[in-house]
Amino acid sequence: MRQAGRYLPEYNATRARLGSFMALAQDPDAACEVTLQPVNRFGLDAAILFSDILTVPDAMGLGLSFKPGVGPQFAHPVQSEEAVNSLYVPDPEDKLKYVTEAVRTIRRELDNKIPLIGFSGSPFTLACYMVEGGSSKDFSTIKKMMYARPDLLARILDINARAVTEYLNAQIKAGAQAVQIFDTWGGALADGCFDEFSLKYMRQIIDGLIRENEGEKVPVICFTKGGGMWLEAMAESGCDCVGLDWTANLGKARERTKDAVSLQGNLDPMVLFAGEEAIRREARRVIDSYGMVGAGGHVFNLGHGISQYTDPEAVAILVDEVHSYSRAKHQPTA
Amino acid sequence: MRQAGRYLPEYNATRARLGSFMALAQDPDAACEVTLQPVNRFGLDAAILFSDILTVPDAMGLGLSFKPGVGPQFAHPVQSEEAVNSLYVPDPEDKLKYVTEAVRTIRRELDNKIPLIGFSGSPFTLACYMVEGGSSKDFSTIKKMMYARPDLLARILDINARAVTEYLNAQIKAGAQAVQIFDTWGGALADGCFDEFSLKYMRQIIDGLIRENEGEKVPVICFTKGGGMWLEAMAESGCDCVGLDWTANLGKARERTKDAVSLQGNLDPMVLFAGEEAIRREARRVIDSYGMVGAGGHVFNLGHGISQYTDPEAVAILVDEVHSYSRAKHQPTA
Repeated sequence: MRQAGRYLPEYNATRARLGSFMALAQDPDAACEVTLQPVNRFGLDAAILFSDILTVPDAMGLGLSFKPGVGPQFAHPVQSEEAVNSLYVPDPEDKLKYVTEAVRTIRRELDNKIPLIGFSGSPFTLACYMVEGGSSKDFSTIKKMMYARPDLLARILDINARAVTEYLNAQIKAGAQAVQIFDTWGGALADGCFDEFSLKYMRQIIDGLIRENEGEKVPVICFTKGGGMWLEAMAESGCDCVGLDWTANLGKARERTKDAVSLQGNLDPMVLFAGEEAIRREARRVIDSYGMVGAGGHVFNLGHGISQYTDPEAVAILVDEVHSYSRAKHQPTA
Repeated sequence: MRQAGRYLPEYNATRARLGSFMALAQDPDAACEVTLQPVNRFGLDAAILFSDILTVPDAMGLGLSFKPGVGPQFAHPVQSEEAVNSLYVPDPEDKLKYVTEAVRTIRRELDNKIPLIGFSGSPFTLACYMVEGGSSKDFSTIKKMMYARPDLLARILDINARAVTEYLNAQIKAGAQAVQIFDTWGGALADGCFDEFSLKYMRQIIDGLIRENEGEKVPVICFTKGGGMWLEAMAESGCDCVGLDWTANLGKARERTKDAVSLQGNLDPMVLFAGEEAIRREARRVIDSYGMVGAGGHVFNLGHGISQYTDPEAVAILVDEVHSYSRAKHQPTA
């Protein structure tokens, strides 16, 4: 999940200086600055590139803007066959150069102390915003297309998959040491449709990714919010790690995936509002639910994004508990 | 799911005549009228009581109102120990008499042609609105209470469970021939929390319900939106039927529950926007996903509420396909 954000006063200061969210995301030095803010404040084990999941459709010329209180909006939503016909795979070293430039800057600043994780939205999640024109409560426009013109949606998803593959490979070439595919909305799909319209295209991306760079493996993390029921299929997608939201039980998820992948997650971000005792207790509960680390591995994380109203001190407590408890738990006995 | 609603012009006419949603819900004759509208229009196999899930906390004196564009709001949200202390189980034959009166009126009008299904919100779902004071995107207030003061939330949930038990029993005594417990928000809970804060109290209700009336069994249906992962536990709650949203596969759900309960669901309501061919195809897909009816049984339904923008003609096509396809499929061969 994104580490930087509005819950951090230093982030708000940088963002105010740049004027807008997109101006911040498109300025490599500023993106580097906010990427490192939570790393420095909390002593995290990995840095997560600060960017937005909608950079790719923006680079396709759909005209992204962020309206306060409304969220992302596209000036040119993709709702007709003509609009689909004019979609293209953007060159990541052209219109998305600000992202690869940010990756290079961050890697330089991190100086190999901790790894950097890059990311992109999944083809279906990008398509949700592209077709709906922004956020949606019921996804009526894209679902109407999916049920009535599955061929049309498939063409959008194929273009998105190729675009995301090139985008993530550009991030990897620039220095991202792991990449995450964020499927925020795949969980809104009906059974069967998830496989056909979301997972299939994540698989296409995974098949096309650079899996080794600088002599090191580049792990791929797949995360579908609300995708717990489809866990087995996600684990067979070719990814190295599956991210889970808080509705899943890590122990059961591990049994179901037979330690073939590592699991990432899955603290309910709302725990961060409940005070120190609850934060420490629930963090331990997540760690314990995974059990002892075996062939797979557990990446502790929130189950979804952090609320902008979170007290940074609560995050500091969480990081402290995760570090101390999991180190004690997994320390080899003398 | 509620059958009557804003997608029907005849419903809008009745509602306009009554002036507001609550005025409509609290007028037994008008509630009967809108309950029967979809039954008469579509030839449905059961009628669903027209009411609201928030009648119970309203009867507790929390002051329910509906603000256009905002949704339900409580004038007195339950956010302190004092507020919890003053909660009580309302007598359903006093402040909720308009509901039992509506049930009696509808039964009289239905004249035993088709059965009537009553319903209530689940204790946790009611608590969400009671504690948040209205709808919420992240449930931060109730989750903060849950993680920091689980004892306090447990007291609310126990009162809700007792209130819902009395309320549903009053519906049954008045003539409801099946009842559904609607857990709209249980799916927002973390693994473990669902069992402790939602399912436990649905079980408490089921244990206290009248299960036979007028010499007939009164089936209990449990529905948790987004609860597909906890299906086994729900099937062991003592209910007769588990409702599923569209993310579940009915065939797999049936294997997991070993035909111990019947299953209800689960067409994506957005299919109704995609035209006749898609509606008929997806309806058949849902019926086929269940397989041949065995010990359990399948109640065809939408996976969640119908959109207010649905064309009534789309519903007519759906009902026609469900009737003709499932009758042909399950007809004993000569």
